[in-house]
Amino acid sequence: MKNILKNALLVLLSILYIGCKKETSKKPLNVILMIGDGMGLAQVSTAFYFGKNAPNFEQFKEIGFIKTQSTSHTITDSAAGATAFATGQKTYKRAIGVSKDSLPIPTIIETLQQKGYQSGLVSLTPITHATPGAFYAHVKDRDSHEEIALDLIDANIDFFAGGGLKYLKRRKDKKDLYAALLAKNYQLDSVALSPYNIHKRNGYLLANDGLPSKLEGRKSFFQDATQLGLDYLTEKEKPFFLMIEGSYIDWGGHAMDAELLKQEVLDFDKTLGVVLNYIKKHPNTLLVVTADHETGGVSIGKSYVIDEATGEKQEEVTNVSINFNNDQHSGTLIPVFAKGPGAPLFKGIYENNEIYHKILKAIHNK
Amino acid sequence: MKNILKNALLVLLSILYIGCKKETSKKPLNVILMIGDGMGLAQVSTAFYFGKNAPNFEQFKEIGFIKTQSTSHTITDSAAGATAFATGQKTYKRAIGVSKDSLPIPTIIETLQQKGYQSGLVSLTPITHATPGAFYAHVKDRDSHEEIALDLIDANIDFFAGGGLKYLKRRKDKKDLYAALLAKNYQLDSVALSPYNIHKRNGYLLANDGLPSKLEGRKSFFQDATQLGLDYLTEKEKPFFLMIEGSYIDWGGHAMDAELLKQEVLDFDKTLGVVLNYIKKHPNTLLVVTADHETGGVSIGKSYVIDEATGEKQEEVTNVSINFNNDQHSGTLIPVFAKGPGAPLFKGIYENNEIYHKILKAIHNK
Repeated sequence: MKNILKNALLVLLSILYIGCKKETSKKPLNVILMIGDGMGLAQVSTAFYFGKNAPNFEQFKEIGFIKTQSTSHTITDSAAGATAFATGQKTYKRAIGVSKDSLPIPTIIETLQQKGYQSGLVSLTPITHATPGAFYAHVKDRDSHEEIALDLIDANIDFFAGGGLKYLKRRKDKKDLYAALLAKNYQLDSVALSPYNIHKRNGYLLANDGLPSKLEGRKSFFQDATQLGLDYLTEKEKPFFLMIEGSYIDWGGHAMDAELLKQEVLDFDKTLGVVLNYIKKHPNTLLVVTADHETGGVSIGKSYVIDEATGEKQEEVTNVSINFNNDQHSGTLIPVFAKGPGAPLFKGIYENNEIYHKILKAIHNK
Repeated sequence: MKNILKNALLVLLSILYIGCKKETSKKPLNVILMIGDGMGLAQVSTAFYFGKNAPNFEQFKEIGFIKTQSTSHTITDSAAGATAFATGQKTYKRAIGVSKDSLPIPTIIETLQQKGYQSGLVSLTPITHATPGAFYAHVKDRDSHEEIALDLIDANIDFFAGGGLKYLKRRKDKKDLYAALLAKNYQLDSVALSPYNIHKRNGYLLANDGLPSKLEGRKSFFQDATQLGLDYLTEKEKPFFLMIEGSYIDWGGHAMDAELLKQEVLDFDKTLGVVLNYIKKHPNTLLVVTADHETGGVSIGKSYVIDEATGEKQEEVTNVSINFNNDQHSGTLIPVFAKGPGAPLFKGIYENNEIYHKILKAIHNK
């Protein structure tokens, strides 16, 4: 009698286990890739000094580093950097979705669309800028915005939000790509992040060129666009790949503007909070946060004041300053933070194009 | 009959499993803590650009970051940094093994000696310098070298190698601490890394002050001293804690000397190779590699040449340069690399004093 009960229990447990396993493996993995343009470790560190609360970065356990060299220049740019993430191949500086021999190579969005994935892009720059552009376009030079915009028409990106209206509507070649997108079943908005239409693709082009920076008065666009994209892509009940770019951290470095850098990092961290909150509720989501390169040779240094009595420079011992080496990109290793299924794949030190292969591996392993 | 065989097999497997478990848990964990003084992420990155082979750093999978603030200064120094690692408590700048209220606190070496651990220190500086000193001394200010040396006499460090002969033998107070160490069963050598005496403690004081830097002609002292220490501590067949400091990476930053920085990082990486080789053969060893702080606000930047024809500055696209912000310590997050049993404990982002607690946890979990 005891044995019969024991065997029955074992059979029951096996059925439950197999059932469970099937349920999980039925659902393909969602992937969110957040890119802080120009965001090296010192930029990430600013969130630990200047935020009101503990930074959302602190929630990561799985950490790695990438080597960012391009095939043409040891110190890379956003185009070659984003192309490495988007295609799994290193390429030359300025290349958008093309190989080092200038040949088009499939992007992760194209690859995943064939597996039934939706796709989304959120950026602060024109949607035709190097970082978002490399995820759907195949163009020899990043400055060819009108050419990149042409590739957007056939890319079937399910959700995008950013700037760049002029490259669609006020083009030198007089083509009306805004109308072309409408004809491709898009709901478009160039005024506000209005509610999405679940039966259509949705595009938000909220600036003629780039969105304003935080210092120029940008409010909660980055968090709101990210939330809107996540809501839309989730409601569609198909897996998704979403790229989110914090574009102006790079600007802070190029301008050697500590306040701009700080505000843009804090805004990135706030958006990271939106995403971490999402993956808490949707654990079938892999989040990878990284950068194309560092900009500015930034470090968190001592802060000084001039003593009024003596006229001497004195350290403010509980304060820090943001210092810049120059206004250029740098080649220091770049941190990678990952959370969710497959996150341990992103530990260690590896080339930037491995990000693409690791994402596909995480999806495959699921 | 079948059931009897099955049960017999189960019992046999259980015995084997319990036997195995006991065998492993009998051996306490060895711990090696490598500190690259002033070694931020940019310093680590130089090993990826200027080494002949792939850097040994590339072998790490488990990576974290520490926050380095001291209780008195947001930008810390080696004394407060090493004391945080050595005691598990944050303290004020310049403090050696004392709390923020200047009270002595037990160091990890003292704590582990009570558990039967041996201890070792390898440094390029005087053995009384801030980083090695904080692991055995309790002194209010890092500059009190003679006072720190007094604490060395009763510290019972089983193996040490570094400089600082003058603080033992040519003291202002005329005490002969060299003789005092000999009386404490030490074999001492102030000329060379001669073979150790397994029946004694062994101390190597190979410079009056600090060892020479790589640029000043240091040969393979750092690797040889590390190997000698590992051999001795292993032959004694008791578990050990060994601290190894790459002291002059910090000097490269303070001097804003790219060549010095580069050579000292490469020498640190070479010593890391010695240690990684050791833990491959002795897998019951936890290795943690980190730094007290970054020095110099270093970044890997573009390299330029002046075009002779035009007189203009031109980028050397496949070359890089090492840039410095200033000659001071900085407050950027500091990477932590770990390997061996307990290494996953060192993932994530946390305060520098957690290193101490995580090491003890790894030993406890073993």
